[in-house]
Amino acid sequence: MIYLDNASTTHTKPKSVTTNVIKALTKYSVNAGRGGYPLSIQAGNIVLDTRQDLSDFFGLGNPNNVIFTSSCTMAINLAIRGTMQKGGHIVATVFEHNSVLRTLDDIKTKFGIDYTLVEPNKHGDIDVNEIENAIKPNTYMVITIHASNVTGHTQDIYKIGNFVAKHNLIYMVDAAQSAGHIGIDVQAAHINLLTIAGHKGLYAPQGIGVLLINNVKVLPLLTGGTGTHSASTTQPTDTPEGLESGTLALPAIMGLSAGLNYVNHNFGTINKKIAYLTRYLIDELNKVPNVKVYSKYNDVGVVSFIIDNIPSSEIADQLFETHRICVRSGLQCAPQIHKYHGTLQQGMVRISISSFNTKQEIIMAITAIKELAKKLG
Amino acid sequence: MIYLDNASTTHTKPKSVTTNVIKALTKYSVNAGRGGYPLSIQAGNIVLDTRQDLSDFFGLGNPNNVIFTSSCTMAINLAIRGTMQKGGHIVATVFEHNSVLRTLDDIKTKFGIDYTLVEPNKHGDIDVNEIENAIKPNTYMVITIHASNVTGHTQDIYKIGNFVAKHNLIYMVDAAQSAGHIGIDVQAAHINLLTIAGHKGLYAPQGIGVLLINNVKVLPLLTGGTGTHSASTTQPTDTPEGLESGTLALPAIMGLSAGLNYVNHNFGTINKKIAYLTRYLIDELNKVPNVKVYSKYNDVGVVSFIIDNIPSSEIADQLFETHRICVRSGLQCAPQIHKYHGTLQQGMVRISISSFNTKQEIIMAITAIKELAKKLG
Repeated sequence: MIYLDNASTTHTKPKSVTTNVIKALTKYSVNAGRGGYPLSIQAGNIVLDTRQDLSDFFGLGNPNNVIFTSSCTMAINLAIRGTMQKGGHIVATVFEHNSVLRTLDDIKTKFGIDYTLVEPNKHGDIDVNEIENAIKPNTYMVITIHASNVTGHTQDIYKIGNFVAKHNLIYMVDAAQSAGHIGIDVQAAHINLLTIAGHKGLYAPQGIGVLLINNVKVLPLLTGGTGTHSASTTQPTDTPEGLESGTLALPAIMGLSAGLNYVNHNFGTINKKIAYLTRYLIDELNKVPNVKVYSKYNDVGVVSFIIDNIPSSEIADQLFETHRICVRSGLQCAPQIHKYHGTLQQGMVRISISSFNTKQEIIMAITAIKELAKKLG
Repeated sequence: MIYLDNASTTHTKPKSVTTNVIKALTKYSVNAGRGGYPLSIQAGNIVLDTRQDLSDFFGLGNPNNVIFTSSCTMAINLAIRGTMQKGGHIVATVFEHNSVLRTLDDIKTKFGIDYTLVEPNKHGDIDVNEIENAIKPNTYMVITIHASNVTGHTQDIYKIGNFVAKHNLIYMVDAAQSAGHIGIDVQAAHINLLTIAGHKGLYAPQGIGVLLINNVKVLPLLTGGTGTHSASTTQPTDTPEGLESGTLALPAIMGLSAGLNYVNHNFGTINKKIAYLTRYLIDELNKVPNVKVYSKYNDVGVVSFIIDNIPSSEIADQLFETHRICVRSGLQCAPQIHKYHGTLQQGMVRISISSFNTKQEIIMAITAIKELAKKLG
């Protein structure tokens, strides 16, 4: 089997991730930091260290504002819903994932918060002028996905962040697809809210996301036990506890810790390899008749294409049947960018590469696609 | 080390739990059910099987209404917030955990939904007459914790459920502390919303909770990718997908599957042992001068006490320092029941037992408490 759906979940995890999860299960099956006995305190310290590592890696400078969530979706919901300004307006882009789009739709219906989706220029970039045109007097927030999970196209968050900061708006970046692949410095990019998936480019198990908060107040989405102010039936709003009600998912957090460590220590090697394989794949696919490639060179290992007008699901099925290659078809939960590209019906076939893929696997995929394009085209 | 804080998180997990989590990490690191390739479909089927097992175990009769959440806290938030009736009223009890109390407080502030907390009778039971007295014309829901996480006292959910059903109200039961210990039949008890923690009596890793939905519409709390209706930027509300946005936490779900299986196949043995050790501990502690025991015989392994007027945290610290015994002190995130018992300042020392504890460990704990009571009392 050749697994090329790593943008969904990285399949091969570093051994240290499994080791750390086993350690969590066999030694640290406790409520981290909530008990007074050493094991609970030690587990709490592991969580603190992981916050510190994430804060350092993303240039946040404040481990207490590293919030663990169950997924990037949850981090996105917390970021958007926790900073709502009733009657306000948000500018986002057509690249956004349904976790942003559906949340915007929901708060529009429930709280009258309107939104505008900005389209990219002909190079695929979100132009700050377009954001400026979309800003209204009641705009309070700008949201841009960092790297598209459909095409891999990456926005210049530093340029956009600088622009957003000048307008005194909140800047949220969805880094689900880019975290681990591209360096992100929250402070330098003037990002107020950064949302991260653990199980993609950071090689954590499924079940962990992170919200980084910088210089903005985020109100809790969930209420419950925090281990703090227990006598009060009003939810505390301090970070991190107030935003992390319930028992922390220590196995997933320890898995993330190991994954982050792997990425941190091998950042150059990992991402040079992914970028190289991505370029190679794009170059080769661009030569195949009947194949249309929607991705340009990118650092996140995402390459999407179609063959003629054949449904993407059919291509994906054939790739598995003929060569046991696992890819994703359809809309990848990001309908607006498909609408923009005219692929809402057909979808795209998405190949996505991790540091554990080999050039041989990419060559196999190219061969398989060539054969299919010849047969079906 | 003697770990007696299992009501917080069961420390020793069955080997099958670790095995299953490792399998999830090494084989099923995929987005379960979202890809068209066999590995994703297989992972999806594992999730479906786990839903079926939970549905069977709790007498729900509908695996599609088994909703996976990141914690029982999240399940409680989803249950309460997803069924809100603006301007309505909820009846709950002083036994509730902060995950219920703080959620009630929050929806009171935000949506004008009022609530009344019912106190128990002298036996510790919530009397249906007291619930009846608390019901107002705008009451739409009754919430009772099943087993108190502070005293272990267990309510008769069948009697209460029958009463609530006759009044055509929604009945929610927080089974965080009882699931795995006491048989619960959702249909027979007329429960509409049952919330479960994975990492306690079901021996799952931290990071998984469950909401069982029976004959009531629950609206999503989180919005995002569901793998269904992807072209729509409006959140679907079908179960289970509409209530489970984001990538499923497969390692935790597979851990829960193994834990549930362990409990299911050893239910009698496990809980006979826990009930016996609980009775033994209560009987022995009741003989110790200066010790006041707040727990009566119960099936969930919870025994709480104080020594004179000594702060519970001091007792807990001493138990670890002198005998390396891990217990929980303070309020256990349930302030109202402490207020009821007059222990809001002092807190209680809580011992909680799992199936992996031995009689020898309980004897050690009794010895340690006797010594402390003599020294400090």
